[in-house]
Amino acid sequence: MKLTIERAQLLKSLAHVQSVVERRNTIPILSNVKLEGRPGSLSLNATDMDLDIIETAPADVSRPGATTAPAHTFYEIVRKLPDGSQVEIEHDADTGLMTLRSGRSKFTLSCLPVEDFPVLSGGELPFTFCLTAAELKALVDRTRFAISTEETRYYLNGIYLHAATTPGGEVLRAVATDGHRLARVEVTLPEGAAGMPGVIIPRKTVQEMRKLIDETEGEVTVSLSETKLRFAFADAVLTSKLIDGTFPDYERVIPADNDKQLDVDVKSFAQAVDRVSAISTEKSRAIKLSLEKGTVTLSASSPENGSATEEIEAQYESTPLEIGFNSRYLLDILGQVEGDKACFSMADAASPTVVRDGVNAGAIYVLMPMRV
Amino acid sequence: MKLTIERAQLLKSLAHVQSVVERRNTIPILSNVKLEGRPGSLSLNATDMDLDIIETAPADVSRPGATTAPAHTFYEIVRKLPDGSQVEIEHDADTGLMTLRSGRSKFTLSCLPVEDFPVLSGGELPFTFCLTAAELKALVDRTRFAISTEETRYYLNGIYLHAATTPGGEVLRAVATDGHRLARVEVTLPEGAAGMPGVIIPRKTVQEMRKLIDETEGEVTVSLSETKLRFAFADAVLTSKLIDGTFPDYERVIPADNDKQLDVDVKSFAQAVDRVSAISTEKSRAIKLSLEKGTVTLSASSPENGSATEEIEAQYESTPLEIGFNSRYLLDILGQVEGDKACFSMADAASPTVVRDGVNAGAIYVLMPMRV
Repeated sequence: MKLTIERAQLLKSLAHVQSVVERRNTIPILSNVKLEGRPGSLSLNATDMDLDIIETAPADVSRPGATTAPAHTFYEIVRKLPDGSQVEIEHDADTGLMTLRSGRSKFTLSCLPVEDFPVLSGGELPFTFCLTAAELKALVDRTRFAISTEETRYYLNGIYLHAATTPGGEVLRAVATDGHRLARVEVTLPEGAAGMPGVIIPRKTVQEMRKLIDETEGEVTVSLSETKLRFAFADAVLTSKLIDGTFPDYERVIPADNDKQLDVDVKSFAQAVDRVSAISTEKSRAIKLSLEKGTVTLSASSPENGSATEEIEAQYESTPLEIGFNSRYLLDILGQVEGDKACFSMADAASPTVVRDGVNAGAIYVLMPMRV
Repeated sequence: MKLTIERAQLLKSLAHVQSVVERRNTIPILSNVKLEGRPGSLSLNATDMDLDIIETAPADVSRPGATTAPAHTFYEIVRKLPDGSQVEIEHDADTGLMTLRSGRSKFTLSCLPVEDFPVLSGGELPFTFCLTAAELKALVDRTRFAISTEETRYYLNGIYLHAATTPGGEVLRAVATDGHRLARVEVTLPEGAAGMPGVIIPRKTVQEMRKLIDETEGEVTVSLSETKLRFAFADAVLTSKLIDGTFPDYERVIPADNDKQLDVDVKSFAQAVDRVSAISTEKSRAIKLSLEKGTVTLSASSPENGSATEEIEAQYESTPLEIGFNSRYLLDILGQVEGDKACFSMADAASPTVVRDGVNAGAIYVLMPMRV
């Protein structure tokens, strides 16, 4: 293999690809990126055996071929080359070494045979649909904060993506929960997604996909089966195994009959929660809301620090209620609300509270109260 | 005590003061900041028993008095109050509680008696001199990177400040070393510093002082004795114990007879070192310089990654030399050089190398080579 590529092109692709490679690997080949030069392009491929990324960059390939090189070292080198430089890459099959030249720098990297590089077995992906980058972003960004990090509840360690029927029509839904809070966001069901199985996309796949969205303006093609999912971007394809588990019946925990309605201005409410929680202990982060007609009084106290209260105006017409929340969870949810207004529906101090977005009707959040 | 103060004023002072307070304290009063309201001003005082800071901010004090409140919680609260707000602080000596009001927020903080707050015993500071903020900054910034973090060599855990006589006249010198590299920077000896003892300023004091310099434009008054040192800024006074130890005779390790001169362009040399070191292992970070007439060839290799070389132009007229360095230490020193040119003086591959700044003649750096 022999080729010349612009440093900027190589850096961009390599940045995405090396990010999938784990820092510590017991299997040496998994530390490497597979490079394949074809006429006009270089493809870069990395995998951790669960997640696989292939990215293609334009290159001037004078001798096609393939090899694998240490991903993080390769990336560090390219990152440190001067802006605007050209990079010449040559792999010598006899010595098994890859040489990288740019300006007056020369690097020789030890390679591993391309035959040893694992291929995430193909398999059919019978469902295919397109989402705009904005739709995919909305589904991910409004739910990922609620993904559980408890490894024992592995079936909550991702975003549950599935088709659902609502009074307003068919939707594609993303749901995440850690048992304390839940986020559910939906977009109109795209063509081709009808009948798709519900799938749980692992956290790392969500992260890597999210990075790619930021550099995409067009559409993203999603293909999936019951065990695998693929995001195809213009220059990159991300293929991931899915979490093999059953996502809980989340609809059951979204109360429909909460009758106490509280509407607040998101920004001033979030700032007040943040302020008052300054006094709560690092451990509990508890904050109490005392609801009365027209006002919410936020309060917190800790044996070591003291106490805090703040009153804010709000639309509330029901009977008085005192309810406690984890202030960090509450702020997480308020951070997702797109409009000026957050609409809380509550039943009592022990039952889940529902938060709706004044603007994004497809988004709903559930928060478990805390005893305070 | 009762007073009103602008949030911005309080925040600025509190930010400095709380930074001295350690996160974990076995002695509860050390977690607190001492507040003292006098007509027209509020003074804030914090200490860790080695370092003490007092800062004064203008305030409208209607009832003078003093108390102590939890520093980090107090800071968090003030930080989260809206921009431009006024803060009302009231301490009730009967209940021992301090109330903070701003807008519709109210915080009550548990206080500890002001009598329990430790006073860093006064003592005479017989030497007093003034430095401009720029001079103090230069002394600190060019040397602090070399401060040792090895706790067993406690006498190297700070910057050694002392008066010295040079052919060019009397100077005030700052020196730091960790045994692998050394930095020595000097400014003209200010009036009042003649005859001062050599003192070792602890790392934490250097850090806190450095933060205060950034907000100072005028002069800083330095007062010191053999055991204590004080930096007086316009609104803040930092008093610190000194490291009770003997700084090594550093002059002995600065070679005077190194006869091999290498002049390089700092920027391109540093970039080349950074690039080539991408291949060296995280552990050794070794890089080799091969010097020949007119060029330096940088090289590095690692069993896992491969190898790297880069040639750069340089002024070098002596016999060829191969010498190895820790690339990170080399980059640290190159990062201090103010001009375009770094001037290396070398003897051989085993003896300390001297690096001089093309512009700042008062700065000198010593770097121990590595066997490569």
